[in-house]
Amino acid sequence: MGSFTLRDPARIGVGVLGAGRIARRVHLRNLATIRTVDVVVVADPDPAAAEAGRELARAKRASLDPMEAIHDPDVEAVVIIAPTPMHAPLIEAALRAGKAVWTEKPIAQDLAETERIVDLWREVQIPMQVGFMRRFDPGYVRAKELVDSGALGRIEQFRALSRDANSPPLEFLLTCGGSFIDMSVHDLDLARFLVGEVEEVHAWAAVLWDDRYTKADDWDTSVIMMRFRNGALGVVETARHSRWGYDIRAEIAGATGKVVVDGERMTPATHYREGATESDLYPDYMERFEIGYRRELEAFFDDLAAGRPVGPGPDDAYETLRLAVACTRSWRENRPVRLDEVTS
Amino acid sequence: MGSFTLRDPARIGVGVLGAGRIARRVHLRNLATIRTVDVVVVADPDPAAAEAGRELARAKRASLDPMEAIHDPDVEAVVIIAPTPMHAPLIEAALRAGKAVWTEKPIAQDLAETERIVDLWREVQIPMQVGFMRRFDPGYVRAKELVDSGALGRIEQFRALSRDANSPPLEFLLTCGGSFIDMSVHDLDLARFLVGEVEEVHAWAAVLWDDRYTKADDWDTSVIMMRFRNGALGVVETARHSRWGYDIRAEIAGATGKVVVDGERMTPATHYREGATESDLYPDYMERFEIGYRRELEAFFDDLAAGRPVGPGPDDAYETLRLAVACTRSWRENRPVRLDEVTS
Amino acid sequence: MGSFTLRDPARIGVGVLGAGRIARRVHLRNLATIRTVDVVVVADPDPAAAEAGRELARAKRASLDPMEAIHDPDVEAVVIIAPTPMHAPLIEAALRAGKAVWTEKPIAQDLAETERIVDLWREVQIPMQVGFMRRFDPGYVRAKELVDSGALGRIEQFRALSRDANSPPLEFLLTCGGSFIDMSVHDLDLARFLVGEVEEVHAWAAVLWDDRYTKADDWDTSVIMMRFRNGALGVVETARHSRWGYDIRAEIAGATGKVVVDGERMTPATHYREGATESDLYPDYMERFEIGYRRELEAFFDDLAAGRPVGPGPDDAYETLRLAVACTRSWRENRPVRLDEVTS
Amino acid sequence: MGSFTLRDPARIGVGVLGAGRIARRVHLRNLATIRTVDVVVVADPDPAAAEAGRELARAKRASLDPMEAIHDPDVEAVVIIAPTPMHAPLIEAALRAGKAVWTEKPIAQDLAETERIVDLWREVQIPMQVGFMRRFDPGYVRAKELVDSGALGRIEQFRALSRDANSPPLEFLLTCGGSFIDMSVHDLDLARFLVGEVEEVHAWAAVLWDDRYTKADDWDTSVIMMRFRNGALGVVETARHSRWGYDIRAEIAGATGKVVVDGERMTPATHYREGATESDLYPDYMERFEIGYRRELEAFFDDLAAGRPVGPGPDDAYETLRLAVACTRSWRENRPVRLDEVTS
Repeated sequence: MGSFTLRDPARIGVGVLGAGRIARRVHLRNLATIRTVDVVVVADPDPAAAEAGRELARAKRASLDPMEAIHDPDVEAVVIIAPTPMHAPLIEAALRAGKAVWTEKPIAQDLAETERIVDLWREVQIPMQVGFMRRFDPGYVRAKELVDSGALGRIEQFRALSRDANSPPLEFLLTCGGSFIDMSVHDLDLARFLVGEVEEVHAWAAVLWDDRYTKADDWDTSVIMMRFRNGALGVVETARHSRWGYDIRAEIAGATGKVVVDGERMTPATHYREGATESDLYPDYMERFEIGYRRELEAFFDDLAAGRPVGPGPDDAYETLRLAVACTRSWRENRPVRLDEVTS
Repeated sequence: MGSFTLRDPARIGVGVLGAGRIARRVHLRNLATIRTVDVVVVADPDPAAAEAGRELARAKRASLDPMEAIHDPDVEAVVIIAPTPMHAPLIEAALRAGKAVWTEKPIAQDLAETERIVDLWREVQIPMQVGFMRRFDPGYVRAKELVDSGALGRIEQFRALSRDANSPPLEFLLTCGGSFIDMSVHDLDLARFLVGEVEEVHAWAAVLWDDRYTKADDWDTSVIMMRFRNGALGVVETARHSRWGYDIRAEIAGATGKVVVDGERMTPATHYREGATESDLYPDYMERFEIGYRRELEAFFDDLAAGRPVGPGPDDAYETLRLAVACTRSWRENRPVRLDEVTS
Repeated sequence: MGSFTLRDPARIGVGVLGAGRIARRVHLRNLATIRTVDVVVVADPDPAAAEAGRELARAKRASLDPMEAIHDPDVEAVVIIAPTPMHAPLIEAALRAGKAVWTEKPIAQDLAETERIVDLWREVQIPMQVGFMRRFDPGYVRAKELVDSGALGRIEQFRALSRDANSPPLEFLLTCGGSFIDMSVHDLDLARFLVGEVEEVHAWAAVLWDDRYTKADDWDTSVIMMRFRNGALGVVETARHSRWGYDIRAEIAGATGKVVVDGERMTPATHYREGATESDLYPDYMERFEIGYRRELEAFFDDLAAGRPVGPGPDDAYETLRLAVACTRSWRENRPVRLDEVTS
Repeated sequence: MGSFTLRDPARIGVGVLGAGRIARRVHLRNLATIRTVDVVVVADPDPAAAEAGRELARAKRASLDPMEAIHDPDVEAVVIIAPTPMHAPLIEAALRAGKAVWTEKPIAQDLAETERIVDLWREVQIPMQVGFMRRFDPGYVRAKELVDSGALGRIEQFRALSRDANSPPLEFLLTCGGSFIDMSVHDLDLARFLVGEVEEVHAWAAVLWDDRYTKADDWDTSVIMMRFRNGALGVVETARHSRWGYDIRAEIAGATGKVVVDGERMTPATHYREGATESDLYPDYMERFEIGYRRELEAFFDDLAAGRPVGPGPDDAYETLRLAVACTRSWRENRPVRLDEVTS
């Protein structure tokens, strides 16, 4: 990637921007385990969060100002885990400062803003990766290998289901851009990752479980039908709650084989009782994707250290957002939407 | 059911109309195992088939003429396994002759013809059951129990996938009415059986695997999106071939629980080899639904003997056909179709 | 088999000796479904049982006297489902009368008595099969295929576990010969069927659950260690009760592969609830081996009709009993026992 | 634990003794991810290994002399991953120097030597933990919870199977103490962990696969029968190779429930092909116990930092070794051995 070079690939200076709940529970702990990472600074406007983050990441210092962290001369790469509206401004500042960027998805909820970042990224040629952690889960990695090896033949059908165990609070719903953009987007990214680009979608949604979704002009249950450019047909089913635990499944069927990725057993223990066998499900996506969250950061820094391209990049994130926007438009306008209608 | 009575519920005189391939492989063998059934006659225009059928069903005699069989005074019930275009005429003759009817689906490919039979059935009040064998499979029976018990709460999502292992010959495709009516109909029936009536559908289809489907103006791959009257959302995926074996799965998710019915392991043996465990799949639907095929006939004759209503009846078959016709229209006209648009 | 011939292989005259609980629940129903079987007579000293059996088997007549049934000139084969002490006398009478014999296991609990029957069978050369239904279960059939094909390589380890869901009544325990002979015998037969003859056993047992077993000088829990003549090592675990349902599993591991046969899912339905997935277990062995019970009788009459040898025969039953006797002796005498010590 | 205190529980000075293959592949990487650990020194007589270890653990320095590392004043705890004969001398030196000890199993292959360490540990009251990683695997943790909660009722049966994918080299076999002490010991530890102390064992072994085991006076296949003090019966099956991958399974059955822990699916992907579904097995124990290896070290340092007792300790390791010695003696002397016969 163009002019970007590291001082010492064995010790990459990192600034973490954002030390909120998921950062402290997942990303900061994971950063602390990557041998090539040297966390220079953890920045968060909340001093307690910044200090807790510093501790978890074993960072040299905490800061209240992400911009200051970006411009620290010891920081060569930033990890952005700030609230969504901050993503684009922080990415822009980091790219302009010549710092490599790893950012939680989305770049922005808005296509124009996202495209602006993609254009900037193309211009500055700095490595940037967006947090689609499922691509690093061993199950989807295996699925991708099977697809790419030709073992499944021409792909004919794609299906993805996700049911989150716990629904977000209303204030989050009011700003998240709707469930296609906030949640289904992970399955839409899988569709592109495993099958290819989409030509047309039709989406239906409903509030079946929690009226807060009505208040937020959002929905808790949806289904998307899609036609891929290569002819394959697909569906994506999404629900915002699941009483039985995190529920996730993808199926990719081709002319000669099929692969299914699920998340059925959290531990290798099975309990037999009262006429039945019972296996534990994952309580939520953070447990199901524990390895994926770890590996997406490891891969970013490994690739950076080795001078390999990193990814998925902002162009991938833009295409996946376009797909989520198409679904939203399809549902709002009650009609099928072709992807080529959707531009920034 | 009105005026219908059996002479001796422990020995019901039965006429079998049709002794073709599936009759000889499945239904005639099953009839021979039902203790209350006394097969009087097996009728088929092909003398060899009729005689083979007679032998399999341990029938008293073979016949070349189904009409003659219907009117045999010893015949109290007919089992219709003739080619599809013969179903309606044979049903009509049997009902008019006061004989109880079990018939393979469909009654007819045409809504008007089907409605005519429903009207006749309502008028004559003779017991009649249509062959949706999945409703008698222990997996779907268990799913139905869970739904009806309220264990799953309000139903939110339905999903059904079917991939037949082997595709039918071209001559069959030319007359089968299209894959929604011929094959997806089984999953559409499950949708109605397990979730309820459907309000609107949108269907897409493609020929991805075998050009014979193009020649037949048919398709080998399809996806249907549906909204139920109770608000639930659903999808039905269908494929006309599967290299890996018969592939079938249904998922019904509700507010408090979910049930999945599949067909993954044909035997309770698992083979470990070269880094993997391997379980055998069913070669085709006849093996997967061996028990369902047996029980649908047992249930018909048990209910008949006990004087209980039999079912699913022609009214159910009509509603399911209406759903398949809606899907076909949706795909042909490239638009969502509301069920209330579809009338005979 | 020597001089035995059927009058009409398409219609074999059968006498059923014994119409008790398992006969009425399983065997008589199964007999009624075999096309080549013509049940002439069902004999049981209890008139109500005999009549109920006649009805279930669609037999011509009932009888109170099994000897009379054996000598009915229309009876060519007998099916013995009488209480265990009656097995040997009935087998002897049938073989001497030239009637083919299918009998529930065991021939006798006593080796000398069993050997006497084997000698008689060798002398008269009449087809005779003993009811080890597991050999006809699709799971064990698949395991046998894998072993015989060489796919598993040289067999190294055998393991079988059986836990019956429901324990027999005390009066049965007092006369059953002990749990190795009554229950473990099914797994000992599998050991011989799948791996080969055994050289030495050591058995331990305990009463851990129900004191009735102490009263019966029996045990409810046991483990057997065995060395096969071909060098493989094996274990058999047995328990007389299981709160969670019928629990059965066999594992055969070889140099290049392994096969496991279990009985985990009674239906293809999985229920998701409260953090877990749940699959139903079989309530008891009769449900688990529904197919095995059906096929063992089908195979007997198919082989008889085709003039093929039937089996497993009395020689097999004798060897398996010898193994069970060796286990009993090992436990009673608190020492390993070599099979060559055990003779009639 | 007595007088042992840490200078700063948030930053524990650690010396690693041994940087061989499994240290570099597993333990050193894991140490680098524990936030409270500050690796001061990695010692190995091989300079290249020591330096590679230093790098992996992000240690301050490498050393060729483990004794020097033990006595480094910045070292508060040692992690011993040296060859087995070095374990006891290093443990002794560390305990005498007042350093907390985490050591790979075994303490020694010899009971007397092990007892000497246990006595010393009791005397100095320094925290010490032995590496039975299975106790930290989420599957066995869940099994332990179910046992301890009473959900399974009184335990009646225990069964453990382990088949290593890859056999060790001959030079290792010559000094490993035999397969009961080297390999079965993990399952023997599970027996004690999950069910309780053992009263009597009987063990049989064989060379069925690789003659190198005969040369080493060892065996590649074995079975152990055991009676627990609480009356339960158990078996342990062990094999030194597995063509299909790492094969592991434990079953604990009680009066009211059962738990099974296995290792069947390495990823959540299932591949459907040619009539079968296929799931990947783990290639070897290091992949299967990736989490267990990580958590045993995390738990040790977490407990140390919190001032909680650590474990399993040397007393546990001694009891488990006694069990393995009893099995070895049983097989060598061809007789059942009571545990109370086995003393140092």
